[in-house]
This record gives sequence, C-alpha cells and structure tokens, in this order.
Amino acid sequence: MTLEYATRYRRTSRIPAEPGTPYVVEKGEGDRAHLFGDLITVYAGGEQTENLFNFFTVEGPKGDLIPAHVHQDTYEVFYVTQGAVRLFVEDTRGEQLERVLTPGDFGFVPKNCPHAYRMERHHSQVVGVAAGPGGTFERFFESMGAPTERHGVPPEPVVPAPHAFATVPERYDVRFLPDHQWRTT
Amino acid sequence: MTLEYATRYRRTSRIPAEPGTPYVVEKGEGDRAHLFGDLITVYAGGEQTENLFNFFTVEGPKGDLIPAHVHQDTYEVFYVTQGAVRLFVEDTRGEQLERVLTPGDFGFVPKNCPHAYRMERHHSQVVGVAAGPGGTFERFFESMGAPTERHGVPPEPVVPAPHAFATVPERYDVRFLPDHQWRTT
Repeated sequence: MTLEYATRYRRTSRIPAEPGTPYVVEKGEGDRAHLFGDLITVYAGGEQTENLFNFFTVEGPKGDLIPAHVHQDTYEVFYVTQGAVRLFVEDTRGEQLERVLTPGDFGFVPKNCPHAYRMERHHSQVVGVAAGPGGTFERFFESMGAPTERHGVPPEPVVPAPHAFATVPERYDVRFLPDHQWRTT
Repeated sequence: MTLEYATRYRRTSRIPAEPGTPYVVEKGEGDRAHLFGDLITVYAGGEQTENLFNFFTVEGPKGDLIPAHVHQDTYEVFYVTQGAVRLFVEDTRGEQLERVLTPGDFGFVPKNCPHAYRMERHHSQVVGVAAGPGGTFERFFESMGAPTERHGVPPEPVVPAPHAFATVPERYDVRFLPDHQWRTT
C-alpha cells in the first residue's frame, strides 16, 4: 500500500500534507530536486517536526567543489552512506578542517562556520539534517534548482538562473563566499 | 588527527564539549551505549544544535520486538542503513501501519504515536533523529542501559535495573505501553 498526497510542494508526494501523520517513504521516493549535478531527496521537512529538523539525501557524481558558503543560523549534518565526500569546514576563529568521509562517517557544521564539500567518488550519497532556530531549509535545493520526478542524478547539470542566485540563497539562510580560500590543501 | 574531549557524558569523547565547534566522527566512534541487545552510538546531541535535533545510530542483531512505547513530545526518524527493520506505528486515531524497512527506506513517527520495531536481520542498523519542543533525548539509552567503550553489540544483553524502569523513561519522554496490541500481524 503506497499512499500519495497533494502538498504545497508537490502534486503527488509520499510525505503526508497533514502534520502528525506517521508515514514510510521507500528509498528514492521522497520529494526530489536537481541542482547542478546532484539529486536531492527530501524525506521530512519542517512541517513534520514543528520546524525542529528535516531529513534529506544528496546524491551526486564525482565532481567539482560545492562552493564555500555559510549559514548564519543553521546547523548541518553530513552523514555519508555511499562513496566518499571531502568536507571542508572553518570554525569561527578561522581554524580549518578538511576530511574525507566514507560510509558511516559523520561531519557536523555549526552555524556561522564556512564550509564546502566535494563528492570524491561517483554515486556518493550524503544524509543531511539541517535546521536552525529560524526553521528548516530543505526546500532550498528545489527553489535554487528544479523539482523533478526523475529518480537519478540530472542528465545535464541544472544551473540556476541568475535571478535565483540573487534571491533564493538569502531566503534559505545560505550565503556564498566567492573569495573564500581553503588553506588545508 | 583525532581530537578527544572530556564532556559531561564521557571522559573521552569525539564530540566537542564546546558548542559551535565543527567536528568529524569516524564510523563507530561516537558516544556508545549498550541497551538490551543493541549498540547505540550518539554522533550529535542537543548541546550541538541548540536542542533542535540529535543524530545517532542503533545497531542490533535479529531479535525481539522492542516493546510498544510513545513519546508525548518527540518526533522520531527511522532511516535504515543496513539489514532490515520492521516498524510498527499507530496514529492518534488508532490506525496502524506495519512496514519492513530496508536500506534507504525512511520511517517517520510523530509525537503521540505509539510505535515499536524489530530488527529482522543480524547486523541491522538504523539512523535515528529524535527531538521535540522540550529538547532532545539521545542520552536515554545510556541512562537506561550502560555507557560502553566497546565497538560491537553487547556480548550479553544489558537489562536495565528495576529502578531504571521506574525513573529513566519519564525523564526522557518515553512511556512504555505494556498492554498495547498490534493488530497488523
């Protein structure tokens, strides 16, 4: 038995529109979006948790560094379940950390800490949990990129329109740091 | 480079005592506890997230049903990464759902929904995120069972002392439902 719901985000979603409803979502069947080369799948968002936390996965090919950015008010988990992901993070005093995470490894990025990452193997997957006192931000990916019904990574990279760069990141507590330097490598 | 910290929970922990510190914890190296047949590993707790969320894993052998219980004020994620886990959950109107989750499947248990689960394969692993408006409850497991430095599941089941049953669950927003019936099977 598979239930589908109409929600504010999707015409058909496996995430119940009504908070307080228990549910199961099979692997890959969450709300999906494409952004650059990655597939983002949301399994739970702020509506489900009184804005305490969300739960999503990011799958991508071996690729480029996701540019340095910072969340002023959001804590973020990187828990690798497939492949390998190189995480860069800087604390609020400027100390930098760079580590390759493989399945089962866990990285934690507090608010106000610049960070970046790069998929180091094809078919890598990261579980993300991200939230702050101001709420959860799981719809950043589809607002910046595009919602999709597909199950795989984008056949071609989904590059945001210029107006998206101007408006979307701020709305979701994301600030890109184009001049940031990683001194760890 | 592996850093260790003295925290209020452990003499040596990979989780920094000071909130706001970025960190990485390798697979299996979080704060560990044994409860019944399971190994629980905490990778982040309320101190790290302004009490918004936590992140832990539960590993166990194929075994008995974890008895039905309910959290009055806590939302809970079951995300399976190894093996198979049978999840039972009842909504607030009494509707029951039973599903076997395999790696990549996601289950969501809202507050006030009775639930139970059973590991259906040896070496199963579930990622948990659990939090409510009143805080996070990742130290339930070591308070009910026992902290450990070991990396595997308990060689013998760790059965809580009777006084633990009387005091610990309530402190961590857990209420066991000894008379609960699952009508799904």
